[in-house]
Amino acid sequence: MTEARLVEGASSSAPARSGAELSTVTLGNGMQVVVIPDHRTPVVTHMVWYRNGSADDPVGKSGIAHFLEHLMFKGTEKHPQGAFSDKVTELGGQENAFTSLDYTAYFQRVAREHLRTMMEFEADRMTGLVLSDEVVAPERDVVLEERRMRTDTDPGAQLGEAVAAALYARHPYGTPIIGWMHEIEDLGREDALAYYRRFYTPENAILVVAGDVTADEVVTHAEATYGRIPPSGDAPSRSRPREPELKASRLVTLADPKVEQPSLQRCWIVPSYTTAAPGEAESIEVMLQILSASQTGRLHKRLVVEKRIAVGAGGWYQSTAVDPSRLMLYAVPMPGVGLEALGTALDETVAELARDGVTEKELARAKTRLVADAAYAQDSQSSLARMYGSALATGSTIEDVRNWPDAIEAVTAEQVKEAAARLDPRRAVTGHLLKDEAAR
Amino acid sequence: MTEARLVEGASSSAPARSGAELSTVTLGNGMQVVVIPDHRTPVVTHMVWYRNGSADDPVGKSGIAHFLEHLMFKGTEKHPQGAFSDKVTELGGQENAFTSLDYTAYFQRVAREHLRTMMEFEADRMTGLVLSDEVVAPERDVVLEERRMRTDTDPGAQLGEAVAAALYARHPYGTPIIGWMHEIEDLGREDALAYYRRFYTPENAILVVAGDVTADEVVTHAEATYGRIPPSGDAPSRSRPREPELKASRLVTLADPKVEQPSLQRCWIVPSYTTAAPGEAESIEVMLQILSASQTGRLHKRLVVEKRIAVGAGGWYQSTAVDPSRLMLYAVPMPGVGLEALGTALDETVAELARDGVTEKELARAKTRLVADAAYAQDSQSSLARMYGSALATGSTIEDVRNWPDAIEAVTAEQVKEAAARLDPRRAVTGHLLKDEAAR
Repeated sequence: MTEARLVEGASSSAPARSGAELSTVTLGNGMQVVVIPDHRTPVVTHMVWYRNGSADDPVGKSGIAHFLEHLMFKGTEKHPQGAFSDKVTELGGQENAFTSLDYTAYFQRVAREHLRTMMEFEADRMTGLVLSDEVVAPERDVVLEERRMRTDTDPGAQLGEAVAAALYARHPYGTPIIGWMHEIEDLGREDALAYYRRFYTPENAILVVAGDVTADEVVTHAEATYGRIPPSGDAPSRSRPREPELKASRLVTLADPKVEQPSLQRCWIVPSYTTAAPGEAESIEVMLQILSASQTGRLHKRLVVEKRIAVGAGGWYQSTAVDPSRLMLYAVPMPGVGLEALGTALDETVAELARDGVTEKELARAKTRLVADAAYAQDSQSSLARMYGSALATGSTIEDVRNWPDAIEAVTAEQVKEAAARLDPRRAVTGHLLKDEAAR
Repeated sequence: MTEARLVEGASSSAPARSGAELSTVTLGNGMQVVVIPDHRTPVVTHMVWYRNGSADDPVGKSGIAHFLEHLMFKGTEKHPQGAFSDKVTELGGQENAFTSLDYTAYFQRVAREHLRTMMEFEADRMTGLVLSDEVVAPERDVVLEERRMRTDTDPGAQLGEAVAAALYARHPYGTPIIGWMHEIEDLGREDALAYYRRFYTPENAILVVAGDVTADEVVTHAEATYGRIPPSGDAPSRSRPREPELKASRLVTLADPKVEQPSLQRCWIVPSYTTAAPGEAESIEVMLQILSASQTGRLHKRLVVEKRIAVGAGGWYQSTAVDPSRLMLYAVPMPGVGLEALGTALDETVAELARDGVTEKELARAKTRLVADAAYAQDSQSSLARMYGSALATGSTIEDVRNWPDAIEAVTAEQVKEAAARLDPRRAVTGHLLKDEAAR
């Protein structure tokens, strides 16, 4: 899947959206506020985005962004552990938080009249977090167990970690968001507090409120809550190494008796929306849509329908990212089909697109589908808020999001060819997940 | 080859060495001084080792250690550019410098009476380096050209960089010593000066003098030259991430029309002398000797002599290192032999050693050869000085070096089996260098 990046009514192919315009303002302490009116139901989605994710973890402290996300639920001087979550529940709301490569975000969805309460709690924990060793150590055990469950017992996840590490020679996008086991084990209270003080500042935060509210009331509440937090000085800078251009292909293989379904993935580093030249990321999205759309993409047609060598095939592009990002194609073989043969067929499909290009009809269909998918995603208030939050947290602007459908429509057949030509198998990182039949 | 680590007369199988004992002293400013008497000829080898190499390059500044090594020849307030080198030439001496993963060293070899002069010059450039943009920019172009010549036009070097990057997910041993092109391009005068001030301090330096001198005279000269440099406070700390344990095998392939001779390499991360448990690194050295000794090793016997599938085979172990380090086995195929088949035969040779072990006779022969090779290497004064300098600069002690032959002799057949069992192909990083027959 590509990530949804569309905004209201900007394309004729997108479903019409109701009403008012999105607005943004910056508080005196540097915190950005974005208001997305959505008056369909009397609820609000309240999100705070911090411009720091796992790729900002200090060297040797991988997992600290994610660990701190856990610790943010441990209470403040004003609100002891559990008080915030209890309040959300009491009000009939929902809450969640997530840590990504480039950002960390916290959100609640409540009836519109409770927005101010959410802001008070969230503003309080931007500066008032209290961490004792008694709280930090057990939570670290929770994270270690999370890693054991999700990664260390899952061959597919292990392969994914090794593929990412091979794809990125130096950049922290090659490090898992949850962190490496031995580094999580060493994370302590001081690490968490140092990280918290560095990144949890108004200059580094973006408030996104979507829902049945006006910009004026959101800004009034924001000034009375977040606006009281003193500025910390400068926004923290992101310092990440640029990737070298490796000339070799790399194959990462993991064979494990627990594997039920072998699979193949081929990955490349490609520009993200933040690093791409104008139109370049959009042409990658269109190219990927043509290759990997479910049921209709060329990979599905070629590998599943015509050649009958795969039971599934697709692709994925981490388009919303601060730094050059990952594009992955994958295929799941029919029983008895080797991954080498599957890879060759996948390469041929890509090479054909790079060589022969697309018809205007295929191009138009891909664009329509991309824009429509994104428009449908906005039907969810929280998807809408996430779309803006993730774009702003990775260096895109509101204008970029607004103009996205037009930029997609502007992609030419020639650009699609060029985008496909980027996917050179001689520079790819390939993952092979295999069943280990002769396991010890 | 394994690295030579032996010292005078400590083993009966080593050639007897003349004379006096090695001695060491630490100056008041923290600089360590090591004197290795060698009275065979009236010359001295004068070396200064700094405990910083490319693995200490700040993130995003790869190549700075090596770049600074170049810039150290650019002159000081007291001695303008070229004066030091001119003096060495005038005195009929030789000089050189080298940057490694863990250290940077400068050396001169002169007649014994000129030792003090060398010390004066070298002490002067430990603190007095003058760098202007006019000097830095052209030297950066020299380094860029060095990289272009040595790496970017050499497929084998390109493959080596990609293999190292794949082997080390995060540790800077995966970064080339010369640096990544795009990062060298950004190195400037301020970077060089900041690096110089941080690392070029007496606490971080080791003076090694080998030659026709007494400890007393060396110490007297050292106090009058290096001893006048004020201490900088603390020795700079080395902060490097620990590697995660990846569970997958990785294959790095580079095909290029310029390749004349395909080759296969298999690499693992293994303990270094500095990180190993007692006896562990020695058992790796003995195991590697059994596998890879020229003409007599099992890889040669199996792949070249018996199976006739290789024209050469061997191995290499970066035993002297601050952090866990690299062991590599390689083979060069006979024409027409595929690298997969060659790799399988290589794996079988290793697996056989891990399964069936060695005879006492084979074990004894390997140890004798290792100890003797190291002893012969000491016949060169500069090799002797390098042996101590590299050991001390990576965290070993003089005692470690002295006891090395005994530690090698203590390795058991069981330890050799265990060391071979480490070389699991399912966790290896493999490099395939191929001729690209169908190049564009």
